[in-house]
Amino acid sequence: MRFGRIATPEGMTFCVVEGDGDDALCRQIEGTPFTEPKFTGKEWKLSDVRLLAPMLPSKIVAIGRNYADHVAEVFQKSAEHLPPTLFLKPPTAVVGPGAAIKIPEFATKVEFEGELALVIGKPCKNVKAEDWKQVVRGFTIINDVSSRDLQFADGQWARAKGIDTFAPLGPWIETDLDSIDTSNLPIKAHLTHDGVTETKQDSNSNQMIMNLGEIIEFITASMTLLPGDIICTGSPAGTAAMFPGDFIEIEIPGIGKLGNPVERA
Amino acid sequence: MRFGRIATPEGMTFCVVEGDGDDALCRQIEGTPFTEPKFTGKEWKLSDVRLLAPMLPSKIVAIGRNYADHVAEVFQKSAEHLPPTLFLKPPTAVVGPGAAIKIPEFATKVEFEGELALVIGKPCKNVKAEDWKQVVRGFTIINDVSSRDLQFADGQWARAKGIDTFAPLGPWIETDLDSIDTSNLPIKAHLTHDGVTETKQDSNSNQMIMNLGEIIEFITASMTLLPGDIICTGSPAGTAAMFPGDFIEIEIPGIGKLGNPVERA
Repeated sequence: MRFGRIATPEGMTFCVVEGDGDDALCRQIEGTPFTEPKFTGKEWKLSDVRLLAPMLPSKIVAIGRNYADHVAEVFQKSAEHLPPTLFLKPPTAVVGPGAAIKIPEFATKVEFEGELALVIGKPCKNVKAEDWKQVVRGFTIINDVSSRDLQFADGQWARAKGIDTFAPLGPWIETDLDSIDTSNLPIKAHLTHDGVTETKQDSNSNQMIMNLGEIIEFITASMTLLPGDIICTGSPAGTAAMFPGDFIEIEIPGIGKLGNPVERA
Repeated sequence: MRFGRIATPEGMTFCVVEGDGDDALCRQIEGTPFTEPKFTGKEWKLSDVRLLAPMLPSKIVAIGRNYADHVAEVFQKSAEHLPPTLFLKPPTAVVGPGAAIKIPEFATKVEFEGELALVIGKPCKNVKAEDWKQVVRGFTIINDVSSRDLQFADGQWARAKGIDTFAPLGPWIETDLDSIDTSNLPIKAHLTHDGVTETKQDSNSNQMIMNLGEIIEFITASMTLLPGDIICTGSPAGTAAMFPGDFIEIEIPGIGKLGNPVERA
């Protein structure tokens, strides 16, 4: 099942998104996506509403350096010498599908990072790796936008990755955890620059250093996770700079596409 | 005026704390501390209720390396070569006055960091340094508890400073911004270990590298701040390790004292 959050002429609401393409339908639900949906009977064509970020998280916990190929390209070191690490993105960085990524003038080398994201379904602490599906409500996509100049100048990544609009999230939450083979999941990023579209990221979750269970166990050994919290599972190689006027689309089969234009802030 | 959040036999509520010592009184208010208080008429003696963290923030934005003396002691470098940086602590790390700081076994060198904290009063972005008082609701104290081993092993500080209970906050929010000379404010930390109390931090906000206005301008150039967000203004020198059984008290004149016992998680 796919849960979305949409802007309709009558306001914002959660919904279940059914079907694809021109026929896709948004069926309004009562409450939130954390329980089995209770339909209100209202529905809209997806093309008549605007998808918003499917969740407004209380925190975004991210695993950095979780793909060996990306460690090599960004840090010029082997992953052996630079293991995965944990960082936070602020909730104020979240925007939805189609919303602009706005680059301030002081961020001079802003790159996309297409990633598989987990949406937490229940409060949890000290979760064992093998139990990760019990606490995850579903999958979505995040673009962990990162200003490389600030990232290396600051040492800490919070500012470089925490600028308003630097966490595009969506398009929806896919709750069928068994519908996707997360050990072998293609992750692509298509960048359109000057009217030409190139596939820049073309990797696979099989390149992850920590797998999903290990990530959840690692984080929850320290931090309580709450419903709606977002876990970013790391970016594969292929990240590249974006400029105002570009369009960046992250694609993960079985989840969907997350596309955002790039503008000057 | 001092706004607190308290646990009473009837539930949690915000209040105004008046008076000191045995006579201190908590007068319940309607709603939140972001507007002028409207009193309900209910009141409790402070000694009959339990102070909670005065705010549950949507984010905690912290300035690291903002005191030259602390940069020297922790990083063994001069502040010239290691300027202030920005990091985030997760809201799930917050606990109130008197609540235990719980040290997990994998955190082997956990230190206190007593700091002046700002409570944001209204949504804001791109605030000029000279306008900082317009967006700050008040002052409080934070103990930016940090596991030095994890901090240096991870490189990123989010885990070392983001463990549950690693952000004691309180005792209340002092809203009279002009009652305190923040350019010359003593900051002390008293550690009780094996029954002996020593003053470990004994510094002054006049050692800050970025002042409060510069901090607000720096952060809001990147991130929107929301009401209740907490800004940690940096730790002065004197941080030291804490162990289960210890008691750590941060003291800032004009605000109060924030004391927490230390336990094994």
